[in-house]
Order: sequence, then structure tokens, then C-alpha cells
Amino acid sequence: MLRNDEYYMQLALDLASSARGNTNPNPMVGAVIVNNDVIVGTGLHRKAGEPHAEVHAFRMAGDHAAGATLYVTLEPCSHFGKTPPCANLVKESGVKRVVVAMTDPNPSVAGRGIALLRDAGIEVEVGVLEAQAYKLNERFIHNMLTARPFVVAKYAMTADGKIAAATGDSKWVTGDDAREDVHEYRHEMDGILVGIGTVLADNPSLTTRLVSKEGKNPIRIVLDSELQTPPTAAVAQTAEARTIIVTSNEAPAERAQALFAQGVEIIRVEKTTDGLDLEATLDALYEAGITDILVEGGAGVHASFFRQQLVQKVIIYMAPKVLGGTNSITPVGGSDAQQMSEARDFEFDTVNFVGNDLRIVAYPKH
Amino acid sequence: MLRNDEYYMQLALDLASSARGNTNPNPMVGAVIVNNDVIVGTGLHRKAGEPHAEVHAFRMAGDHAAGATLYVTLEPCSHFGKTPPCANLVKESGVKRVVVAMTDPNPSVAGRGIALLRDAGIEVEVGVLEAQAYKLNERFIHNMLTARPFVVAKYAMTADGKIAAATGDSKWVTGDDAREDVHEYRHEMDGILVGIGTVLADNPSLTTRLVSKEGKNPIRIVLDSELQTPPTAAVAQTAEARTIIVTSNEAPAERAQALFAQGVEIIRVEKTTDGLDLEATLDALYEAGITDILVEGGAGVHASFFRQQLVQKVIIYMAPKVLGGTNSITPVGGSDAQQMSEARDFEFDTVNFVGNDLRIVAYPKH
Repeated sequence: MLRNDEYYMQLALDLASSARGNTNPNPMVGAVIVNNDVIVGTGLHRKAGEPHAEVHAFRMAGDHAAGATLYVTLEPCSHFGKTPPCANLVKESGVKRVVVAMTDPNPSVAGRGIALLRDAGIEVEVGVLEAQAYKLNERFIHNMLTARPFVVAKYAMTADGKIAAATGDSKWVTGDDAREDVHEYRHEMDGILVGIGTVLADNPSLTTRLVSKEGKNPIRIVLDSELQTPPTAAVAQTAEARTIIVTSNEAPAERAQALFAQGVEIIRVEKTTDGLDLEATLDALYEAGITDILVEGGAGVHASFFRQQLVQKVIIYMAPKVLGGTNSITPVGGSDAQQMSEARDFEFDTVNFVGNDLRIVAYPKH
Repeated sequence: MLRNDEYYMQLALDLASSARGNTNPNPMVGAVIVNNDVIVGTGLHRKAGEPHAEVHAFRMAGDHAAGATLYVTLEPCSHFGKTPPCANLVKESGVKRVVVAMTDPNPSVAGRGIALLRDAGIEVEVGVLEAQAYKLNERFIHNMLTARPFVVAKYAMTADGKIAAATGDSKWVTGDDAREDVHEYRHEMDGILVGIGTVLADNPSLTTRLVSKEGKNPIRIVLDSELQTPPTAAVAQTAEARTIIVTSNEAPAERAQALFAQGVEIIRVEKTTDGLDLEATLDALYEAGITDILVEGGAGVHASFFRQQLVQKVIIYMAPKVLGGTNSITPVGGSDAQQMSEARDFEFDTVNFVGNDLRIVAYPKH
């Protein structure tokens, strides 16, 4: 086994990713300290408010940090937050070399941590496994650069592009494994968003039900410009999970009252020609502490997000079945394009089998 | 490198597959003769009418066949066809062991070749890399078992399941590499089939245009129950490639005459509640020597083939783009299902990147 910089950085990335879903609003970070080819310290950031990865690693390393190399998946912080700056800790530790996967996009760090280390005479290398580090913290990076939640559009369709029969029946497109996979995403994400059409048609609870472990419920978000969500709807019961309904300024106050009385939170935004103002919606949701959102549809909601280029990632489950039907429902609806060239461009990233279904991940083309 | 039975059989399969597209109506077959761990003979069936794979291999091996092992991807034939039975040749060659990937599904062989060898005291092993051998000759096997062409449904769709905008515009769904890939399939297959809607909307030539090599044109087949194909249509020009129009018994004779005068062949079948009788169509096309057909759509034609379970393989090209549109066109249309459970079940086989697009291959679920 060749133990080079990539090897140790991969280990740090693996450590970091084990906290997936638990660190919001912070990034996932892992650290490995290596002295004379022996791993003397390891750490990861487990949860916001708990120590940063470097702190754990230096605690473990103790005196062995002197003269060692620190591998860390994100530039050490240079500012006082809930914890003191890690760059100071690194300086004082006696390490002689620091390998960093990527600089911190957080405007209050953004290279200052690295500069601080270099000023102290520490050799710093940046960019080892950088692409992987970006992907690991894609949510955090988007948050820092835009002050909006990272939006993941998800749908499950047949091999001929149908999410439901013309009657609306959609039970089931995918198999058990793919449905468990979706609940894993729900567990990891702050918010889950659907349109009022989905609430009225399916009355979903939108909670996390995992076979393998206890799931964390995302905040349920419903786009409902007329406040048509019935107080009896599953999403309006807030004992198990929070619910935010996004509505228009004109929606009747008495409906808002009824929902509010059940613990439902209401956000009001302007109506545009393409439904509720989604940019304002995302601004408000980020303000409310939501760093990422799984947009589950229906077809009209997906259409608005895609058309306005507000999607940062697409997760498609594709089932090995062919439904047919001229009026069957497809994953992205909305107003009709005139030409194929109006389509939004993406890049396929990964394709995996999940049971008998495929999970296809795509990112917007840059 | 471990040189075991699988190793040599893989070599025989590789040799066989190099003739893909050239052996119809015969199967692709490869043979390798190994004596004392040295490959003394190799051969493959290049083209119908030319020698079988075993003949080439024994010619090369000469006296070295005595005491050797023969690896062959398909059971040696036991009947007199255009060439004498290979089983006799094997018997006379002096080989002491024969390894066969699969028995011949041809009813006039079907185990008789193997029995003949065993009766002659030759050790015969059957089933080495059998699954690969089946896939290699899926077309031939289907022909032998059903006396119909092997039907491959192919479509190119966006990541949200659209083949065209509501206006019909479809230029282009996929990139250059995927379109070249389609022409490779056209080159390999006997027939290419579209509906009259596609002819009237796009006026395609349906010929093979390959960048990498000179392509073989498939026979163009148009499902056209009213004989609406204009004599000026690209498919009605038969200098470059044959065209068969399948129509109903009621279609006007004068239209048939005009097309016939241009060299277009006409097949008449009954009309059913679901359009032209596709089973009778496939029977007639096999009778005409067509062993496999690429069904390119449109959505209505695909719907009929899928609904009647007449598809043996599906090739889906998926482009990394999202079009949206409630009235955009999807790859499989036709009459509407009431429930998702009415979908036809398939199994995904392989997924590959072709340029920036995905090529997804599926088979009917057994």
C-alpha cells in the first residue's frame, strides 16, 4: 500500500463523511496527523457546536504532532466562532507541514487560515483531492457563496419517463431499496419540499422512515399559494416534525390562523408569473436555518425550479419498467418548450444500481 | 495469467463477436483448439455461406488437433446445411475433449451434436461462460425459438423522459457520440422500423451513416396502415437501401402501385384494435429473411410493441438535460394505463457513458 498524500487525505475525507447529515450548518471536515509514516492523530467534526476535526486530532496526537504533517479536508479556520480558530492551534502544535484539500469558501476564512500558517513558517500544500473535497461539502460551499439552501431535485420515474399513470396512480415506481435510499436522503437533509398538489393528491407525511436506523425528520415545506393545505393533512400535524408553508401575501388570514394554531409556520412571499417567488422563498428558508432542501415534486414544482435554474443537484431513480400512455405524468411538467434546445443542461455524475433500480445523479453544467 | 477453460472460452467468444453484424441469419461462433497449453487452432464464423468456426480452427491445427481440447461457443452442428456437419469433423480430428459454451437452440441440432461426440468417446463439457454465449447470440436464439425477428426498441430521451417538445422539435436530444452509436446498431441489424408518423414528421432516410467505417444499410420498414407514405419520401427512394411498407388489407391499391413502381416492397396484414397486427407483421418479416429489427418509434409504435410484449431488448439513450413541459412528447405513448402496476417489467443490464449521454440496456424480466 502506497501511503502518499492522497492516501492520507482520502482517509481524512472518509472520516469527515461519516458525519454526513449531522454537521449542518457546518461543513464535514476530517483531519489526520502523520509522523514518520505513523498515523498519530485522527479526528472529524461530528456536529455543530462540538470541536472541529483538528482539535480531536491534536488531542490524540499530543507531543507526536511535533514535526508531523497534518492532512485536513478544509482550510483550518482563522476566526473565532463557537470555538477558537484552528489555525492558531495548528501553529502551536509544532507540525511542520499542512496538506489542505480545499480553501474555505466561508468569506470570513477564504484563505486567511492558510496565510496565517505560511506566515508562521509552516509548509502548506493546497488542492490534494480537491474535487472530492468540493463534492463532500457541496451543500456548505453553495451556502457560503449564495446564502441560499442547496437544492436537490429528486424524482422516481419509469424507464420511459413516467412518474404516475394519467389517473395519478404512482404506487409504486421503484422498489424497496430505492425507497429506503430516499429516506436516507431525507434523514441527511434539513428540508423537504413539495407542492400543494402533492399534499392534496397523496397526503404524504414526508417524515423519515428508515429500516436500518432511527431517522431524523427534515422540516416539511409546502408551496401553497392559496393556503389550501387542510388542517387535517398529515403535514399539518407538527408533533413529529416541523412544517413551513410558503404562501402568497394574498392568501386568506383565517386559513393561516387555523394552520398556525396547529404549530405550522407560515412564510409569505410575492406571487410571480411562474407561481410563488422561489428566489425569495429560498432566501427566507436559508434565513430560517435551512441549508439544504430535497425537492420531491410534483411535476409543476420541479418545472419551476428547473426553469429558474435553482437546482444544484438532481437525483433520478429509474425503474426497469415501461408504462406508456400519452397522458401519463412525467417528472417535470409546467409550460411547454417550443424547442429541444430550450432544455437546461446538466452533467451526469454517477450511476448506481439500488436494488433493481438505477440511481442517476446529475449536476448543472458549468 | 491463469489459462483455464474460462480463459480459452473467453477468447473464443471474443473471436466470435468480431463478426457481429455479418453472420445473419447464422449465429456468431468462435473456436479455439489447445494442445498442451498451446493454442494450435483458432477460427470464427465470418459470414453465412462461409466455413463454420470449427473448420477454420481445424485447418490451422492440422495434426496438432490430436489429443487436444476444442473450445467452441456453440454446440457443433450435426446436420448438413450449406456445409457438412461440424460434429463429424470434430470426431475425425482426434481431439479428446470438447468444451461447449451452450447447446444449439436450432431445433435441427438441439443436443444432437453433443450426443454424437459423446457416442464417439469424446469427453464433452457444456456450460462454460454460458450466460455470455447466450447474450452473444440472443438474436439467433430468439429466431430459433420463435421464428420471428429479435426486436430491439430504441429511444433517446432527456433526463426527464422527453423525446421532443410539444411542437415535435427533437433536434437534438443526444450528442454526436450517441448518434454515432445508433448508426453502429443500424449497421449491425437487418431491419429498422418506424411508424408513418415519424416518416411524415421528420422524413428520415434511416440509412447508416458512420464516421468510423462504411456502414451497411438496414432494410427500412414503415408501419403505414393507410399507405400515406409519399412517393417523394426519403424512405421511398430505394436505390441505396430496401424499403418494406407494412400496410392493411384495406389500403388503396393505387397508392401501393405508385410505391411499388419505385421499388418499395409492400406487405399487407390485418388491422386490429391496436393498429396493424404486429405478430403477423413479425412473422412476415422473418419470412422475408429479417432476423432482427431496431424499432425507433415514434411513441405510438413503441407503445404497441411494449403493450403486446413483443420487445426483446430496450436501448435507452438518456441525455443530461431537462426539458419539462406538460405536453412534451415521451418515448412510449399510446392508450393510458390506469395504474402504475400495469407497467411492463424489465431488468436493467448495462449502463455506459456514450459521450456525455448514458446508454442503458434492459431486457424483459423473466
